Amino acid sequence: MSKELRTVSGMRPTGPLHLGHYFGVLKNWVELQDREEAYFFVADWHALTSDYADPSRIRHNIAEMVKDWVGAGLDPEKCVIFRQSAVKEHGELSLLLSMITPVSWLERNPTYKEQQQQISNKDLGNAGFLCYPVLMAADILMYRPHGVPVGEDQLPHMELTREIARRFNYFYGDLFPEPQAMLTPAAKCPGLDGRKMSKSYNNGIFLSDDFAGIQEKVRGMFTDKARLRKSDPGNPDVCNLFPYHVLLSSPEEQAEIRRGCTSAQLGCVDCKKIFLKNLEAFLTPLHERRAALDARPGAVEEILAAGNEKARAFAMSTMALAREKMGL
Amino acid sequence: MSKELRTVSGMRPTGPLHLGHYFGVLKNWVELQDREEAYFFVADWHALTSDYADPSRIRHNIAEMVKDWVGAGLDPEKCVIFRQSAVKEHGELSLLLSMITPVSWLERNPTYKEQQQQISNKDLGNAGFLCYPVLMAADILMYRPHGVPVGEDQLPHMELTREIARRFNYFYGDLFPEPQAMLTPAAKCPGLDGRKMSKSYNNGIFLSDDFAGIQEKVRGMFTDKARLRKSDPGNPDVCNLFPYHVLLSSPEEQAEIRRGCTSAQLGCVDCKKIFLKNLEAFLTPLHERRAALDARPGAVEEILAAGNEKARAFAMSTMALAREKMGL
Ligand code: SF4
Ligand code: SF4
Repeated sequence: MSKELRTVSGMRPTGPLHLGHYFGVLKNWVELQDREEAYFFVADWHALTSDYADPSRIRHNIAEMVKDWVGAGLDPEKCVIFRQSAVKEHGELSLLLSMITPVSWLERNPTYKEQQQQISNKDLGNAGFLCYPVLMAADILMYRPHGVPVGEDQLPHMELTREIARRFNYFYGDLFPEPQAMLTPAAKCPGLDGRKMSKSYNNGIFLSDDFAGIQEKVRGMFTDKARLRKSDPGNPDVCNLFPYHVLLSSPEEQAEIRRGCTSAQLGCVDCKKIFLKNLEAFLTPLHERRAALDARPGAVEEILAAGNEKARAFAMSTMALAREKMGL
Repeated sequence: MSKELRTVSGMRPTGPLHLGHYFGVLKNWVELQDREEAYFFVADWHALTSDYADPSRIRHNIAEMVKDWVGAGLDPEKCVIFRQSAVKEHGELSLLLSMITPVSWLERNPTYKEQQQQISNKDLGNAGFLCYPVLMAADILMYRPHGVPVGEDQLPHMELTREIARRFNYFYGDLFPEPQAMLTPAAKCPGLDGRKMSKSYNNGIFLSDDFAGIQEKVRGMFTDKARLRKSDPGNPDVCNLFPYHVLLSSPEEQAEIRRGCTSAQLGCVDCKKIFLKNLEAFLTPLHERRAALDARPGAVEEILAAGNEKARAFAMSTMALAREKMGL
């Protein structure tokens, strides 16, 4: 590839991707693949850090995630799509980096502390969970990227990755450029029923949802709960649907909707129709790309096999350098 | 191989092996290779857990260790001699096992607590050091052995390995037999100058020492410090040399020496002569095997390449089973 900059990012295969994933992550990836040499990986080892007790869904989720990615516009000809666990070098580098990473750095990782406190239905006291920022640093540094597209919640991990890179370079000589965080703003995507969006509530709009199901969902979707009749003026700022217009409708349409809603001239049923029209226009090409993939048996496996191969070749070159630097 | 039982063990390549290593470990390994399918590995990743800041000696130490092993009688035709870091599957299994290993199990590991307290010249607060019992469990379980030859100090690690095996089997279904500890008594080998034997004091008798150097060392060796003249009776139980007679002299000779020493009939100079004679008889075949290896350039690399290959084949079969059990 002749692109000058290189980047890498990954996603845990924990379930189908929704609009928030598209606008918060994938849209950015799709743009990146044109500008940079880009490695995107399915982080199946990371999925284990929390789902170790029942990993049975991971295999299924991996294939689904690749379909979501390609549907969203990632093009295996333009970027490298691969599976983390297929490139064992990630495990090796993680092991090597764990030697120079103080436990105290991991313990003060805010995600570690928060999740330990918040998640009560899973036991997250395992060593893999404590050490997963080291694995994440290995995933990133392996491709020696200039920068990494991340959400705000990932900034502490990026800082840790940079610290680990510095420490490696300090002990063994320069190898890893300190990757910059390329911040992608999160896309606001509330749950359709007003609760937090969650797989188990099935209250999101997923990229793989068929359109009939989506119409159903949107019909039942909460809007401004205080607006009981069309003749009541509504408030887009507390409406559950409006954030979706922000993602999918043009600025002109958004202004129009706001005007119509607050003046009680636009009813929620019609507002939803506008949304459905825009959503359909948005989803149609995604669904077409997905269908093309589904029509070709073994297509996902092929994409991953080719991507794994390319990623492995790069990873092997990094590991050769790392071992040499370390005198191994 | 048609042997029914399988075993595995490893050693960290931290420096030349001395008589204590031979009598405490290698002698037992040499016997094991005839009775069992045996995997012996140079634990270079483990060496990093404490020597991460300066790993430059590890490469040299690896070759020296293989020479010490073959010198001691390990036969690459009878057992598999390999390098841990050459079998990346150890890293992968370690990662998978870290997902199911509670951090609390690692923190209560007595070696971890002790070494943290005792070793002040190295920073052992790194994640690799905390997690190294997980890597050790992976090293062992990979070969699904019935038992593992260990010294007493390794018993807590063996227990942890068994616990991790149980937990894997509980979550994902039976795969790993719980390996039994096959306890090898430690060989008492005091430092020649009465201090604790240590590489940095150069106060040990190493398997690779040439005989002229050894004579020098033994001449200067402390014996019973209270015995100033030959006419004073000595006490083998506080003598620094006598433990070496226990290792190298026949029971009859030992009885004779004890009698001669305590009755002031045998002087320390003569006692050392007996020791040197027995030591030479012991070391000669070791040195011959080592010299044969040195005479064949690339011999060590060949041994490791062949062993790595065999170990990798077995490791791949275990990982295929492990991934299948986990549904990956
Ligand atoms: S008209 Fe649209 S923006 Fe206003 S409350 Fe209804 S759904 Fe929400
Ligand atoms: S005679 Fe031998 S056993 Fe007795 S004190 Fe001297 S060296 Fe030790």
